[in-house]
Amino acid sequence: MSEFGLEDLPVRDDLRGRTPYGAPQLDVPVALNTNENPYAPSPRLAEALARAVADVAIGLNRYPDRDATRLRAALAGYLGHGLGADQVWAANGSNEVLQQILQVFGGPGRTAMGFEPSYSMHPIITGVTNTGWTALPRAHDFAVDAEAAVAAITANRPDIVFLTSPNNPTGTALPLEVIEAVAHAAPGVVVVDEAYAEFRREGTPSALSLLPAHPRLIVSRTMSKAFAMAGARLGYLAAHPAVVDALQLVRLPYHLSAVSQAVAGTALEFADELLGAVKQLREERDDLVEWLRGHGFTIADSDANFVLFGEFDDRRAVWQGLLDRGVLIRETGPPQWLRVTVGTPEEMSAFREALLDVTGGRRR
Amino acid sequence: MSEFGLEDLPVRDDLRGRTPYGAPQLDVPVALNTNENPYAPSPRLAEALARAVADVAIGLNRYPDRDATRLRAALAGYLGHGLGADQVWAANGSNEVLQQILQVFGGPGRTAMGFEPSYSMHPIITGVTNTGWTALPRAHDFAVDAEAAVAAITANRPDIVFLTSPNNPTGTALPLEVIEAVAHAAPGVVVVDEAYAEFRREGTPSALSLLPAHPRLIVSRTMSKAFAMAGARLGYLAAHPAVVDALQLVRLPYHLSAVSQAVAGTALEFADELLGAVKQLREERDDLVEWLRGHGFTIADSDANFVLFGEFDDRRAVWQGLLDRGVLIRETGPPQWLRVTVGTPEEMSAFREALLDVTGGRRR
Repeated sequence: MSEFGLEDLPVRDDLRGRTPYGAPQLDVPVALNTNENPYAPSPRLAEALARAVADVAIGLNRYPDRDATRLRAALAGYLGHGLGADQVWAANGSNEVLQQILQVFGGPGRTAMGFEPSYSMHPIITGVTNTGWTALPRAHDFAVDAEAAVAAITANRPDIVFLTSPNNPTGTALPLEVIEAVAHAAPGVVVVDEAYAEFRREGTPSALSLLPAHPRLIVSRTMSKAFAMAGARLGYLAAHPAVVDALQLVRLPYHLSAVSQAVAGTALEFADELLGAVKQLREERDDLVEWLRGHGFTIADSDANFVLFGEFDDRRAVWQGLLDRGVLIRETGPPQWLRVTVGTPEEMSAFREALLDVTGGRRR
Repeated sequence: MSEFGLEDLPVRDDLRGRTPYGAPQLDVPVALNTNENPYAPSPRLAEALARAVADVAIGLNRYPDRDATRLRAALAGYLGHGLGADQVWAANGSNEVLQQILQVFGGPGRTAMGFEPSYSMHPIITGVTNTGWTALPRAHDFAVDAEAAVAAITANRPDIVFLTSPNNPTGTALPLEVIEAVAHAAPGVVVVDEAYAEFRREGTPSALSLLPAHPRLIVSRTMSKAFAMAGARLGYLAAHPAVVDALQLVRLPYHLSAVSQAVAGTALEFADELLGAVKQLREERDDLVEWLRGHGFTIADSDANFVLFGEFDDRRAVWQGLLDRGVLIRETGPPQWLRVTVGTPEEMSAFREALLDVTGGRRR
């Protein structure tokens, strides 16, 4: 069998030559590369999760609630804004939520638009669902210019527009006026990816407040980051009930396991505890931004749990230098920038020390 | 917002007017409608599952192993046939496995072929991935005729052929010669859906033995049925390592949670216990077949944990009559037939009593 390879398989033409998406999963002392929350679930939460799973375990021979009704009600309660379960949908990570959106509203002959640099899974999932992709550049400060966005939407008439607030990998949040302008102009659906919403600075708005006025607006969220549940894979969205109905046409039946529903529901009960850690991370982020600026690095204002910083003539050398010192960050975004996730105070010290070492103390 | 509805959304044209797939989730005393395993996990297994989740819970802030390496090795070990982890792939239910196969090997301008009546998710997932669907009828006894299949494949040149063994909803297994003939003739990949494989009668083969000779053959399995884990959503496949490589191009990164990986791995450690219950169900199935025949019903030979029986001039009336008596079965398959899942001895008595009541004791 050894002579037979990937190139001998009738893979779809547009996928040929591609490589699978994903950051290297390296075993390093300080992993600041995938925007994970550094604070593990508390023993009390871990115990509650085990108990919740023990409860559902005795019924695992039966299919789960296909509509995840209880979980969706709990997510709606967490989001607030008067949302109900019928305005919330959940899946295995926000990637699956996004894929379902593209399967319903995208497809052959349709297009999605995004403002880059942004989350690289948006164009990838767009491609996998056979939807066209139009990329517009962000401004120099990584903002989305409302006028330019409206002009591009009017000219291209995309079926789906992706906005991100805060944006990955730049950390940039969007003013509501930009989202509103896009929502008014867009002929199809507008997805605001708010994966990092809980990390935004005081005063930065969420697009959730715009939902009542915009029935084609979708706000996606995840429990991977603020809820420290990257390993549990629970993404969700809030939108008009008709959007949730539309997603039923493509969701795989019983896509969300009884265990995932129980785990996510239990984590939501610990929201206060988990959001306490988010507060710490926001402070750590603001300290990092200040420190980086003070040491002569350029940074993009961040409302997320990561910071994009630069600029480097040879970012690869800086990335490798950090890795050699046990600190793994992400080589992503525009060519002269690097992205670092906000970790624990100890991890950030290690990062700062390594960075000064690699860049000769910077501050030029 | 109440005036805005699904019809106001820019849903993909080919999805308009469709209804979501799924059996009614009704609360009845005897549920024999979705081919679930009636035997709940034992307290010992439930305890082991809770402990396994407690172990992973403390690391849930980190992303899971994207490649699910340990679980895939365990699944390969369970399947036997000399398979290794690189020949196995897992996802959230076999529906997701099938969707990934269609995303890589199907798509616009490509077609999949199936032999109906069969698992209705095959054409549905095919449609969602914008792949064309060609349905061929099975023979009167629900067999797939090798000669007719080869002729159709030669004429239509489908990119994907779906076989099912045992077939849902008929229970029919395929002789290896049919699978081999199809695999020889097919220009693309051939998927043998073996969701119910563990229930097959003594002497009925699995397509796993054909994998070494057919690098474009894929055998899909699930832990929902034999492993009594419908609520845990774990589907998998065995194929040439190149097929597994190809699936990496479309799988969503981190699609399978750390919890799902731990739950499935733990259930596999209880294979002996769980397959003991499968043996009971097979005997119960054979008894049911004999009883139905003895009472004047026509049945399709079954290698699964369900039986298709008939024929009824008005199957809806029989289905409703059973439901009125607290027994929910499935109105599926050809128009004069009904499908009943094999449950516990108590559930089967309730079914038998209700059926005789509804059909006036049949035996005509």
